[in-house]
Amino acid sequence: MLSEFDLIARYFTRPLQHAGRAVLGIGDDCALLAPAPGMQLAVSSDMLVEGRHFFPQADPAKLGHKSLAVNLSDLAAMGARPVAFTLALSLPEARSEWLAAFSGGLFMLADEHGCELIGGDTTRGPLNICITIFGELPPGQALRRDAARIGDDIWISGTLGDARLALAGYRQEIVIDTATIEAAAVRMHEPTPRVALGIALQGIAHAAIDISDGLIGDLGHILQRSNVGATLNVDALPAGSALTRLPQEMRRRFMLAGGDDYELCFTAPASGREAILAAAHTAAIPVTRVGSIEAAAGLRLTDAGGAPLDLRLNSFDHFTSP
Amino acid sequence: MLSEFDLIARYFTRPLQHAGRAVLGIGDDCALLAPAPGMQLAVSSDMLVEGRHFFPQADPAKLGHKSLAVNLSDLAAMGARPVAFTLALSLPEARSEWLAAFSGGLFMLADEHGCELIGGDTTRGPLNICITIFGELPPGQALRRDAARIGDDIWISGTLGDARLALAGYRQEIVIDTATIEAAAVRMHEPTPRVALGIALQGIAHAAIDISDGLIGDLGHILQRSNVGATLNVDALPAGSALTRLPQEMRRRFMLAGGDDYELCFTAPASGREAILAAAHTAAIPVTRVGSIEAAAGLRLTDAGGAPLDLRLNSFDHFTSP
Repeated sequence: MLSEFDLIARYFTRPLQHAGRAVLGIGDDCALLAPAPGMQLAVSSDMLVEGRHFFPQADPAKLGHKSLAVNLSDLAAMGARPVAFTLALSLPEARSEWLAAFSGGLFMLADEHGCELIGGDTTRGPLNICITIFGELPPGQALRRDAARIGDDIWISGTLGDARLALAGYRQEIVIDTATIEAAAVRMHEPTPRVALGIALQGIAHAAIDISDGLIGDLGHILQRSNVGATLNVDALPAGSALTRLPQEMRRRFMLAGGDDYELCFTAPASGREAILAAAHTAAIPVTRVGSIEAAAGLRLTDAGGAPLDLRLNSFDHFTSP
Repeated sequence: MLSEFDLIARYFTRPLQHAGRAVLGIGDDCALLAPAPGMQLAVSSDMLVEGRHFFPQADPAKLGHKSLAVNLSDLAAMGARPVAFTLALSLPEARSEWLAAFSGGLFMLADEHGCELIGGDTTRGPLNICITIFGELPPGQALRRDAARIGDDIWISGTLGDARLALAGYRQEIVIDTATIEAAAVRMHEPTPRVALGIALQGIAHAAIDISDGLIGDLGHILQRSNVGATLNVDALPAGSALTRLPQEMRRRFMLAGGDDYELCFTAPASGREAILAAAHTAAIPVTRVGSIEAAAGLRLTDAGGAPLDLRLNSFDHFTSP
């Protein structure tokens, strides 16, 4: 059995990789960061639990990727540039094969974003992965949930619904070929955080959130905290490619309440449309305009013709959802 | 059943309490910190798992205290001033009574140290508490493990062994009255992080570490990273009051390899003795000089007369210890 110190040394300790903010990495009581002068620090923590956020026996390389991706997605939703992260890991046992694959997946994504692993903790226990991530951004530039303004457009990055389609396939809620499920499942297991887009939206977008629990619920947070309402054109929502083969009701439900896609939902004034398309081009991520922020409280769903839709949908909650 | 959002709103969301570095707290994709100009940020994560770090059915108020205390102790060992923390919590169920007590214990200690809860995560799963803490300190002032110098004195804050005595009582390894066990157990369940002492030692001490896994093991990290050795006078170690009633061999073992006391072990040049006693007086925490750093590798244990002691001791490891 590997000791805790051997485990950290072998799988998680590297020389500092990124000429960035880290002054001292793994191996002391604390890591040390030297923030860039005048910049603010964006901080987010996510905890992933076996059986809730990922299947038992999940591929450890993909799990390493996803654990960091969900945190990078939080930075993206704030418009912050990734700097560093800590990893706390509870493991039933220290298996070399699992650890090598997990840290491989983790570091591959970290290196793509110049994001340094600076510290953490390991212990024995039920599998649990907790990452706390740090990004930086100029004061006043954060894409806050409370910043939506009446008249703003509502935009979505990428496509929605693939992760929910894969889940439906795994659960046999739908009958669909394995290749389609596997293609859609890449979105669930190895989501691509929209970091470059978030940074490019600094100074252009008002509010933003990442779509982890479903568009309805996550957009709802923006509406609530900004004290506004909205109308969404459901037929304008960008569907993942496999979703076109589903019945309309299911397709709409998967896009509106599916979750786990890690796209950005953001608002911006109509005057910013060209700048947003330019930012999306720079970040190489398509964006779609799907609705507008309004004074009247609540979220109204319409079809392409503007006719109201009455869809009963819920977003995911860890304590009340099945 | 409380929803995840109700749970966070009811037990963990307060207006920002401390006129400090937090610009934006709980409720967005990220929290925002504005670091003080020119200061470095010390960062530490600890994960506490039921059955490993605390007993099932542990008092939730004490658990709230301890979860933050172990992180504050890491800041203390670096000489950093607490600023803020995130809390990620996995819970089998959302019980109001438990949550109220846990957050009460947590916030009481946080407020003592002006340390702001700025964000985190909650999910359902086996009980697991992961806190990431942020402190600040001037560049070059951190009490790093690799900073011990040949000729340094070795110092210990407070007393050692009480937490191990309490564990021995619980495990019935020793026969001792309940009142004594309960008094010693306060050290295990509600440790007092030596934050004020750590800050007062800036510019005076060289290396420091907090004693969580046992003095032998933790001092060993300083020796290894500083590439030095040491001699410890075992009879000089400051014993917790109940330990005086134990046989000498057991008393020594509990002080040297007990763990969970969260005292500081630090090194400083002999020229700094007066300044250290003054810092300890300011921080109102006694300190005891117990040995010295030497060029010869390894750790030598002696009695008060300087005669070598051959004690076979191990520090705690989460993956190889029982």
